[in-house]
Amino acid sequence: MAQGNLDTLRERLDTINGQLLELLSERAEIVQEIGLEKERQGVPKFDPVREKKMLDELVALNKGPFSHETVRHLFKQIFKASLNLQEEGQKKHLLVSRKNKREDTIVTLGDGISIGNGKPVMIAGPCSVESYEQVRQVAAVLKEAGVTVMRGGAFKPRTSPYDFQGLGIEGLKILKEVASEFGLKTISEIVDPAHIEIACDYIDVIQIGARNMQNFELLKAAGDVRVPVLLKRGLAATLDEFLNAAEYIVSRGNTQVMLIERGIRTYEKATRNTLDISAVPILKQESHLPVLVDVTHSTGRKDILAPCAKAALAAGADGVMVEVHPDPATALSDAAQQLNFEEFAQFYKTVTESGLF
Amino acid sequence: MAQGNLDTLRERLDTINGQLLELLSERAEIVQEIGLEKERQGVPKFDPVREKKMLDELVALNKGPFSHETVRHLFKQIFKASLNLQEEGQKKHLLVSRKNKREDTIVTLGDGISIGNGKPVMIAGPCSVESYEQVRQVAAVLKEAGVTVMRGGAFKPRTSPYDFQGLGIEGLKILKEVASEFGLKTISEIVDPAHIEIACDYIDVIQIGARNMQNFELLKAAGDVRVPVLLKRGLAATLDEFLNAAEYIVSRGNTQVMLIERGIRTYEKATRNTLDISAVPILKQESHLPVLVDVTHSTGRKDILAPCAKAALAAGADGVMVEVHPDPATALSDAAQQLNFEEFAQFYKTVTESGLF
Amino acid sequence: MAQGNLDTLRERLDTINGQLLELLSERAEIVQEIGLEKERQGVPKFDPVREKKMLDELVALNKGPFSHETVRHLFKQIFKASLNLQEEGQKKHLLVSRKNKREDTIVTLGDGISIGNGKPVMIAGPCSVESYEQVRQVAAVLKEAGVTVMRGGAFKPRTSPYDFQGLGIEGLKILKEVASEFGLKTISEIVDPAHIEIACDYIDVIQIGARNMQNFELLKAAGDVRVPVLLKRGLAATLDEFLNAAEYIVSRGNTQVMLIERGIRTYEKATRNTLDISAVPILKQESHLPVLVDVTHSTGRKDILAPCAKAALAAGADGVMVEVHPDPATALSDAAQQLNFEEFAQFYKTVTESGLF
Amino acid sequence: MAQGNLDTLRERLDTINGQLLELLSERAEIVQEIGLEKERQGVPKFDPVREKKMLDELVALNKGPFSHETVRHLFKQIFKASLNLQEEGQKKHLLVSRKNKREDTIVTLGDGISIGNGKPVMIAGPCSVESYEQVRQVAAVLKEAGVTVMRGGAFKPRTSPYDFQGLGIEGLKILKEVASEFGLKTISEIVDPAHIEIACDYIDVIQIGARNMQNFELLKAAGDVRVPVLLKRGLAATLDEFLNAAEYIVSRGNTQVMLIERGIRTYEKATRNTLDISAVPILKQESHLPVLVDVTHSTGRKDILAPCAKAALAAGADGVMVEVHPDPATALSDAAQQLNFEEFAQFYKTVTESGLF
Repeated sequence: MAQGNLDTLRERLDTINGQLLELLSERAEIVQEIGLEKERQGVPKFDPVREKKMLDELVALNKGPFSHETVRHLFKQIFKASLNLQEEGQKKHLLVSRKNKREDTIVTLGDGISIGNGKPVMIAGPCSVESYEQVRQVAAVLKEAGVTVMRGGAFKPRTSPYDFQGLGIEGLKILKEVASEFGLKTISEIVDPAHIEIACDYIDVIQIGARNMQNFELLKAAGDVRVPVLLKRGLAATLDEFLNAAEYIVSRGNTQVMLIERGIRTYEKATRNTLDISAVPILKQESHLPVLVDVTHSTGRKDILAPCAKAALAAGADGVMVEVHPDPATALSDAAQQLNFEEFAQFYKTVTESGLF
Repeated sequence: MAQGNLDTLRERLDTINGQLLELLSERAEIVQEIGLEKERQGVPKFDPVREKKMLDELVALNKGPFSHETVRHLFKQIFKASLNLQEEGQKKHLLVSRKNKREDTIVTLGDGISIGNGKPVMIAGPCSVESYEQVRQVAAVLKEAGVTVMRGGAFKPRTSPYDFQGLGIEGLKILKEVASEFGLKTISEIVDPAHIEIACDYIDVIQIGARNMQNFELLKAAGDVRVPVLLKRGLAATLDEFLNAAEYIVSRGNTQVMLIERGIRTYEKATRNTLDISAVPILKQESHLPVLVDVTHSTGRKDILAPCAKAALAAGADGVMVEVHPDPATALSDAAQQLNFEEFAQFYKTVTESGLF
Repeated sequence: MAQGNLDTLRERLDTINGQLLELLSERAEIVQEIGLEKERQGVPKFDPVREKKMLDELVALNKGPFSHETVRHLFKQIFKASLNLQEEGQKKHLLVSRKNKREDTIVTLGDGISIGNGKPVMIAGPCSVESYEQVRQVAAVLKEAGVTVMRGGAFKPRTSPYDFQGLGIEGLKILKEVASEFGLKTISEIVDPAHIEIACDYIDVIQIGARNMQNFELLKAAGDVRVPVLLKRGLAATLDEFLNAAEYIVSRGNTQVMLIERGIRTYEKATRNTLDISAVPILKQESHLPVLVDVTHSTGRKDILAPCAKAALAAGADGVMVEVHPDPATALSDAAQQLNFEEFAQFYKTVTESGLF
Repeated sequence: MAQGNLDTLRERLDTINGQLLELLSERAEIVQEIGLEKERQGVPKFDPVREKKMLDELVALNKGPFSHETVRHLFKQIFKASLNLQEEGQKKHLLVSRKNKREDTIVTLGDGISIGNGKPVMIAGPCSVESYEQVRQVAAVLKEAGVTVMRGGAFKPRTSPYDFQGLGIEGLKILKEVASEFGLKTISEIVDPAHIEIACDYIDVIQIGARNMQNFELLKAAGDVRVPVLLKRGLAATLDEFLNAAEYIVSRGNTQVMLIERGIRTYEKATRNTLDISAVPILKQESHLPVLVDVTHSTGRKDILAPCAKAALAAGADGVMVEVHPDPATALSDAAQQLNFEEFAQFYKTVTESGLF
């Protein structure tokens, strides 16, 4: 009889479940109509005052057994689901979301060089542009190896105001000159919204650095031009924040955006940062943008660059970025973690011959 | 007319809200009956198979506009609220929760010394018990200052197996002898479930260290005796995990448990750990157990112990713990962070005369 | 004889120690001369090529028993100490460092209102400026309570480009109008270097937000005006990075800078961020700038604001900042964590009557 | 002439560098003699009192230009280098260190199954042993796929004392029975030092869980038997702490130890933990022990297990571990993250056919 009792109670539960579903669906339809009406009137969809009033009324009606708190919670969930429904049809999903665009975005740098097309890319170059001669030396090595995209910092965001701040526009000019000499594409970081426009004349990809990932004015300026952007993940940014930062750029019309994981800040000090490898498959799933990994900044250790680059590719990354310098010991920044030419050759061989490249 | 239209739609929404509430309440009552029935039958309340079946049926019935995913989500919320309802009346809240017991737990060490009674306590002593003479020197200083509870490690959990591991039972004997000589109460860490019983003969409070916060066998053993326990928060434990660790002890009958925040692991290296000061008011709200702060391990810096101790007390802590050593430079462990006698005198004066003690 | 042997060896060690010290001192004097010479020539002090050459020579000379690696390490330490010596006399310490200026910096807002003078300040106001009426309501409540500095966001850096971005210049105008009406000082965040100048016409303190702590172009622009700056610690900034960010401002001539701790990102989710309370005494020791604590963003929980504010003051903070809104539930940002007027009154009373204010 | 002046100063510097090196080498030889003498006498090498005395004497002698603080710092570096020298020849390096043993340790489970021999291993099985039938179902699937090592938890360390705690010894018996039926090797976690001995009768590998990585009594007990141990990295353990934990086991004679990365606790919540992929190459460099990756606990997300497993192998891991359950939705623990049989088949195929396995 006990089991029979249970069965009866469960049947009643099933009936109520069905009735709840019916009411929820009816409610959802009304909410959709309200959404359309609001659209016509140009009124915002989310109306916290109205929502609060509804909750207050429901609590006033509530006679238990659910606590008022639970009633509030359940209806907030229902309201939220309804709001999401209202927002479908229009924005619904971020522009950078794969739900919005299923096929991969391919970033084109010209001359048949593109990123995100299934063939991984290697981006290499010095941390900072220090001189024409230095960049030229690196470019020659890259060209010889078959690398087509060179990085080099002209504007260097440095912790201390007294550290080398980069050569600025002069550095961009050096990059352009060397790049045209060797037929390479270039990437360089821009840090001031006022420099975005001018940068387009000198470089092929604008990099937004980790410290500026939520410098929204810079993101907006980068969204207003039509040069590809390489957006670095912030030091302690969540993936959600990362994607939203990219959305700032894409929502202004610049769809040529690449994401690059560069390690996050954790308690572990064996590496400079912690390479969040799972960010690669998650970003590839969530977004249609190319995803790269900066192995140099992720680890800050030359001795593990090759296995980490292979891991990045195995996890689905569209490319890796690495720092190379003619004489790392004398580099004006990041002296410890840049590869010299011999180390780069070894790294390049290991990665490109791994079957993953 | 547009606004009129909106108003009509909103009225319909209000009606449906009321109907949903009625159904939800009716459903909740049935669930409560099921809960009682299950209790009679000794069957577990949570039945994932049944839950999955109900969700599948609802999805089969769903004709939109909510997506199947949303229907699943909303009903899972409803099921969860119902399950919580079932569990009310019996366990419902943790024994350590203030919802279970509103008044503060006062831990009594005998001789009129108690912790958690509104008057803050200062616990001091060396990191490790090194010798009878060393402990005696510290005890004399503490006694003179008016400190009534002395800490001292006999079993030392050390990162390396080659570091000083403590004097073991011999150390407990030294503590007992000196304590009885000076009329002090003692706290010492126990690391092996097999030592809990014997420890009760020598010390007044059993400390469970940060590394052992989720050594559940040790917690259970500490729950089986009737000596007060000082439970340290784990290096990366959430407050929820911390309270559940205490529950392991209390659920076995030992209700004399104190919680002690000792810093958490973060990226910041200016301090050895990061003192999570907000843990103090949260733990005091969530639990009726006394809450202390170990300022030595939280910071690892002698130069900020006094302001951090004052902050702990201002935040509502029932006491602070600090390490004192006759000659920190020669200490066998934690040499850098222990106060010498002069520094302790200064610290003690600053804290006790702050108006917070 | 064994002990005799040891003693002899130790005597020889002592002699060598003395000789080493003499050589090190002589070496240091030469390095100082080189430093002066370089200054005359306008050549940078740090010369990595020369340093590398010296190390290579030493390694070539090394016959053990130290490994080459150890020799390199020891001489790098010696070189570094020498370089520091060269840099003494001129910059040596950051301008924000207390070693550079022992007495506390007092930030003056006019009308006899100043921060950092030993009397704590309370800064309160809404997360966002939403309307003239809303700000006016808050201002009236603050004025009545005795609060003299009001915060309010006009430019809102938001994770999503689709969230409310603030009223912009319009918001600054509202702040100015209400402030003059009630005789309050105002603080508001600026996010674009191009807005710094104009902001000076409307507000009394420019806030640089957590996301922009290393937006160096913004820091430089804030350093070029003469309006006080409230600099927030970055989400995952070290204290060293925080002080260097302040140095960017001060090094350009704006010495009226305040530091504000606002919680750091950790694994703990009981609070929105983790209030790093030990940052307060460390920053006060390291720097002469006023140090405040934003209790709202540090915790994200209204229920622990008062104990955390008291902890901040007990730790030595020069003030606390808190968010207040006429109707938090309908706020356009940070709805969950702002205090309503009644809650603020309770908070204000608890904090100001604690004996710490 | 200025340059001439610089050159002269530099020559003098070079001379002094050479003299310093000579003195340092002489000093090092004396320190080595002292070390041998101390060894004969059985006296500890590190003598903080003597070190303090030497530093005090040097500071007393110091006439600048180095500050006393700098003199202390430089000589501490020299003392430390000397101490390291003393310790060479004997222990010097951890037993788990590759400096101590260059060739890879291969862990042998019998029947020709071994781990760390260059061919990656896949370990799979349910989170918890729930019943004979459940384990049998999993074993059949694993056998069919070609997996030779099965995991399954009998003693489950759970955050709450009210959660399912595992079947205990009964669970080990089930494992043994099913394993012998299918010819599989088994791994199961042991949580109490008192159970280590008995466990050896039932399972092929003893797992020490993340929460117990620094439960040193458990490590010692595991070091006293001769069954292979799989040691999980703690939730917030550094790699140095991880290796030292392994050293606790190996130093007691059990050399058959495997390390397994299982994700660390960070601020990022897109994954349950953050897979620290760089731990793999670092541990492989630092240690000769096999290194595995638990992709299930590292990520807590079924949708990224395959790319993360491939990344682990590409980074040099000796194997991966994954959870499989006949019906994850009804699992008594970790319901959300276990693969069902179909998902496992897909995962297995993707990983083993990647060219990395």
